Amino acid sequence: MASEAKRARLSDDDRKTTLKPLIDGGWTMVEGRDAIYKEFLFKNFIQAFGFMTQVALQAEKMDHHPEWFNVYNKVQVTLSTHDVGGLSERDIRLANFIEKKAK
Amino acid sequence: MASEAKRARLSDDDRKTTLKPLIDGGWTMVEGRDAIYKEFLFKNFIQAFGFMTQVALQAEKMDHHPEWFNVYNKVQVTLSTHDVGGLSERDIRLANFIEKKAK
Repeated sequence: MASEAKRARLSDDDRKTTLKPLIDGGWTMVEGRDAIYKEFLFKNFIQAFGFMTQVALQAEKMDHHPEWFNVYNKVQVTLSTHDVGGLSERDIRLANFIEKKAK
Repeated sequence: MASEAKRARLSDDDRKTTLKPLIDGGWTMVEGRDAIYKEFLFKNFIQAFGFMTQVALQAEKMDHHPEWFNVYNKVQVTLSTHDVGGLSERDIRLANFIEKKAK
């Protein structure tokens, strides 16, 4: 059941408990999509791509990949779960990982 | 003089000789910008991010960085030289490196 839950859209309760702290931390809902977005700025490209590499390894391990754009020190990340057509618990987990690594 | 040349916009002659083969190879001019764009599709995320890592190391070495977007097996690359407000010889060099690594 746990793995089934991970493949479901976030419930209203989940949104209040696990999504809200991310929104309070600077993630925003994407216009017209059930997806979240945040921009991260680093000191330079080495820092930005180092961050991306850590996220990439985690994403591959989770089999859950971001949509992201990078130029020099800037990384823009969008998270959503294609299988369920919107946000799932996997997006919350990946966003929390990203927050930890972006610090 | 060589390093000065690298910081100048591509001349019309350069465009015929060094840019044309890239355009013939699938790069396109970006609407409204003096920049080139190409989308690359890989087998999976590991292949796509492996490609990005090779390009990142070269970009850092050249101090010339791409604008790029990735989701899963897709990498969309835009090249332009901010210092000169358009395409320079560094974009050609990076595009040729990218072509070699994307094969």
